[in-house]
This record gives sequence, C-alpha cells and structure tokens, in this order.
Amino acid sequence: MTRTIVASATKEVVIGFDQPFCVIGERINPTGRKKLAAEMVEGNFETVIKDALAQVAAGATMLDVNAGVTAVDPNATEPALLVQTLEIVQGLVDVPLSIDSSVSAAIEAALKVAKGRPLVNSVTGEEEKLEAILPLIKKYDVPVVAISNDETGISEDPDVRFEVARKIVQRAADFGIPAHDIVVDPLVMPIGAMGTAGKQVFALLRRLREELKVNTTCGLSNISFGIPHRHGINAGFIPMVIGAGMTSAIMNPCRPQEMEAVRAANVLNGTDPNCHTWIMTYRDHQPAAGGTAQAAPVDSSSGGRRRGGREARRARG
Amino acid sequence: MTRTIVASATKEVVIGFDQPFCVIGERINPTGRKKLAAEMVEGNFETVIKDALAQVAAGATMLDVNAGVTAVDPNATEPALLVQTLEIVQGLVDVPLSIDSSVSAAIEAALKVAKGRPLVNSVTGEEEKLEAILPLIKKYDVPVVAISNDETGISEDPDVRFEVARKIVQRAADFGIPAHDIVVDPLVMPIGAMGTAGKQVFALLRRLREELKVNTTCGLSNISFGIPHRHGINAGFIPMVIGAGMTSAIMNPCRPQEMEAVRAANVLNGTDPNCHTWIMTYRDHQPAAGGTAQAAPVDSSSGGRRRGGREARRARG
Repeated sequence: MTRTIVASATKEVVIGFDQPFCVIGERINPTGRKKLAAEMVEGNFETVIKDALAQVAAGATMLDVNAGVTAVDPNATEPALLVQTLEIVQGLVDVPLSIDSSVSAAIEAALKVAKGRPLVNSVTGEEEKLEAILPLIKKYDVPVVAISNDETGISEDPDVRFEVARKIVQRAADFGIPAHDIVVDPLVMPIGAMGTAGKQVFALLRRLREELKVNTTCGLSNISFGIPHRHGINAGFIPMVIGAGMTSAIMNPCRPQEMEAVRAANVLNGTDPNCHTWIMTYRDHQPAAGGTAQAAPVDSSSGGRRRGGREARRARG
Repeated sequence: MTRTIVASATKEVVIGFDQPFCVIGERINPTGRKKLAAEMVEGNFETVIKDALAQVAAGATMLDVNAGVTAVDPNATEPALLVQTLEIVQGLVDVPLSIDSSVSAAIEAALKVAKGRPLVNSVTGEEEKLEAILPLIKKYDVPVVAISNDETGISEDPDVRFEVARKIVQRAADFGIPAHDIVVDPLVMPIGAMGTAGKQVFALLRRLREELKVNTTCGLSNISFGIPHRHGINAGFIPMVIGAGMTSAIMNPCRPQEMEAVRAANVLNGTDPNCHTWIMTYRDHQPAAGGTAQAAPVDSSSGGRRRGGREARRARG
C-alpha cells in the first residue's frame, strides 16, 4: 500500500489510498494576489497568519507555503522570504507544510529550516528541474510533487503526461527515491476549454494508481476555470477524482461547498470510519435550500422513502 | 454502445454511457407517504399532479409512477389505480414514464394504456418474478429495471449480486430481450450501516458496464439512510456513481443540491457539451455561503489562482 508520510514538528499525516483525502490549503501564495504580495515584500505577514489559521480551522490537512512575489530576481529574494514565511507558519499551526517554489535555492533554504517532513512542491519532467530538485529530495529525505510536464510544455495527450510521470518516477528511483515519495500531479485542464478534461484525468488517475502505484494531487480549481458557479463544478469534481483514486489536492479549504464534497467522498470511499467526521461536522445540520443557484421546489420529506418502498413492496409482493 | 430507449408519446430519451445522466423522478409513489396514499385511494390526484409538474420543472428526465397504496389486496385494487395515475401523468407532462409496481397485473394493465416506450420497474432474480415479468417485457417491447436480489434476499456480497444481475440478463436473452433493454439496479446499501457500501457499488457498476454492458440505476438516497445532512452525502455520491459508470437513478429532482451534482457530473463526464446546460442554469449564479452546515470563512477570490500560479512560475522559473 502506497503511503506518503508528511509531518510537522508534532503531527504526522499519511497520504494514501486508504486514508482520508489530503486537503493541501492553497491560500498562502502571493501569485495573483497583489495585495498579499505587496504585504509580504514589506515584511507584513498579517494575511499569511490569517490565512494559515483560517485554513486549518476549515479543515486543511496540510498547508502549501509559497513566497513567489514577482521580484526582478527571484533567485536573490525568494529564498529569504520563503524561509521567513515558512518559519512564521510552522510556528503558528501544527499541520505539515508543503514548500512551494520554482526557485531551487528557495526550496533548499526552506528545507534547512523546516521541521518534521515537509512536502516539496514541485519537480517537473524538465531535465534542469530533475537535476536541481531530485538531489535535494534525496538529501533531505522528503516527498515531492511531480508535475507531468517537461521541456515540451503540457501535452494535451494524457498518454504523454503519463509517460512524463513515469520518467520522473524512474529518474527519482535512480537517485534512490522511492515511488511512495512521489506525489504525481497529472495536470488538470479547464473543462470549459477541453470537454474531455474530466474523463482524461479520471483515466490518468487510475493508471497512476494501478501502474505507477503513486499518490496523486492537482490544483483542483483549474477544472472550473472560466465557467460560472465554479464551486459547484469543483464540488462535483472532488468526489469523481477521489473515486478515480486521487489522494490529495491543492485547494481552498475555506470553501464550505468543496469541503463538504471532500467529507462526503471520504464517507463513501470508506476513509471516514463509522461516518465519524461527517456526523461530528453535520449532526446539527438544518436542511436549507441555499448554496445552489436554481431554487427548485424543495421538499425535505424525501429521505429513505425509496428504500422503504422497495422493502415494503417486496414484503407484500 | 449500450442504448436504452424510453419514450413518451412525443419525446424519446436515450439512457447510455455517452448520455446525460437520466434522472428518474421518484416522488409519485405513495409508499411511506400516508397523505398521498389516502388521497389516491379517494381518487384525489392533486398531489400527483403537483409532484409531476414540479419534478419536470426541476429537471427530471423521466418520472416513476407508483400506485402501491397499501391495500388489503393489491392484486385487486392496484391495476386500476396505476392505470388511472399513469393516464393522468402522461396527459400532463411529456417526459417518458417508468411503470413501478410489484403487482404483475398492474404492470400489464399500465403497459396496455401507456403511450410511447415506458420503462418497467421492476423484475428481480426471483423465479416467480422472472416468469411473470419477462414475457410482458417481450410482448410490449419495453425496457425493464432488473434488481439484483433473488429468493435468498439481498446478498451483502457484491459478487453474488453481480451473478443475480447476470442471471436476469441471461434469462431475458432466452425470452429474446436484448441486454440493452435491461437496466440493472445493483442495490445500494446504507453507508451508515455498511462502511464498504460505496466501494462495493462503484466496483459493481464498473463490472456491470464492462462485463454485462448494461445500463444501471439505483434508489439513490438509500446510501445516506440514517445519517445527518443526507443531501450532502447524496450530492457526493452522485458524481462518484456517474464516474463509476451509472447511467440513471431514481431520485428526488426537487432537491437542488442533488441536481447541481448531476449537472456538474454531466459537465465533467463529457455529456454536457460546451457546458451548455450548466451555463444556462448557473450563468446568473451569485456566490453564497449557504447550503452547507459548517460556515467556514468564505473567500470568493480563490478562482483560477492556482493555475495562474503554476504558469507564472513556469514562465519565470
């Protein structure tokens, strides 16, 4: 059984097919958040702190930490900023962290100060990346996210993306890194641009699980890019990828609709024994018609009737 | 490609792996609805009419029609009542109907007056049922729901349920009924009572699709029997069964959370080309925190950032 172990100073988490879905909180990331980027450059970590606490409170299993403010020379500025951000976050919350950077020097600087066993995000199939990142993964004995693109970019052909993933796993093995420390991101395309994006990723996830036996992740909200009511699409996508074998995702845990989908899929996938987490979370739930766009007539009396019906029919039939 | 064709007088619907999920509205069923049963016995069809219109308005693909009021002798009373109910419903709405009864004489009486090509609900693997129902299916050239239990009851072993389904398909073939006119119900157990119920049914659905090449259905809300916030579990279950190959379900289309899950899964499964239905339904959607029990901090700014982040990183990496 594939088990990817990540840990903070005090808390260990296992990513695996028989484990609750691992929610990697995506919020501590200045990319596309100008205000946050400006704050971090100024040494103001108020939003970082707020986002760290809110994501853990909302149920994040881990937190991604990215300090990629768009500087003129990331190689010069990002290592120190990533270290500073990481130290603040690991001093604040007890969940394991993901060190997220495209700057190898920043990843190594963060690995030197990280407590526990962080996840590194990420390596790709690009030769330069493999040579820069895999030695760090081996040296620090940590797991890594492997994104299935290479020098040729992101292929629209899922078979090509699978082969890139296979190449990364093989190259990692050459460095003495086991497959269970590779978490493959098969890359999710926006369904609005490519109608087969969903079926592609479901098929890829099954192959990654069955053939490479690796854990998997993705940037979850990519799927709904550009279409209305994205949270509804995301919430439908989560059970489908979990059913296809995905074991983690980089996502926003502060969205209740998405987190409800994660919890429901854990129940249905058999990783919430006795529905314990579900019941603890929703035992006082009051039925409501909200959270959906089409306010169709609501009738709360539907529960259980079908089953009762069949059993009743069978009894008298 | 497996295609089960159902039709009303004016409208044909195809149930199939490459079709939008077929939502069979469950509401016209007096089992467990004492008030509705009392009305129907009195010849009052106000609720039937209201439920028919509401379900079609909410997006039902088909409507199930059951007149099984708990009479002393269903064989004497149900045929006439089912015919009456069916005629009212088929005069009112244009969607195909499912004739739902455990009384063979009622099914035949309804088949005589039904317009188009209704679905018959249901036959089981019980010898007496096979002998009573399959000749009607052949004679009227209609499709039938095959429930995978037999004289020994409902097996908890999914392999036994699969073999019951196979037996029904084989017996149907002996009558000259093709597999594409059999819609198998693999039987969904409550997840609260059996933690493996979800994984069982996902595996069964794959086998039914790949080995028997049949369409499938289930009484959807069975899965959430007895646990809080059932609609959240149902809404997570729908994308998972669709991902596993289920092509229809008997469910309540008047529940917006469940119907949103159906529409999202159709987008993701590639059966809502260009996201047309999704966009038409949700284009004016206003983000809201409602519809979920845990009101975690909400931040609507998460969309698309992750993708932007990766691309931005790649560009500067």
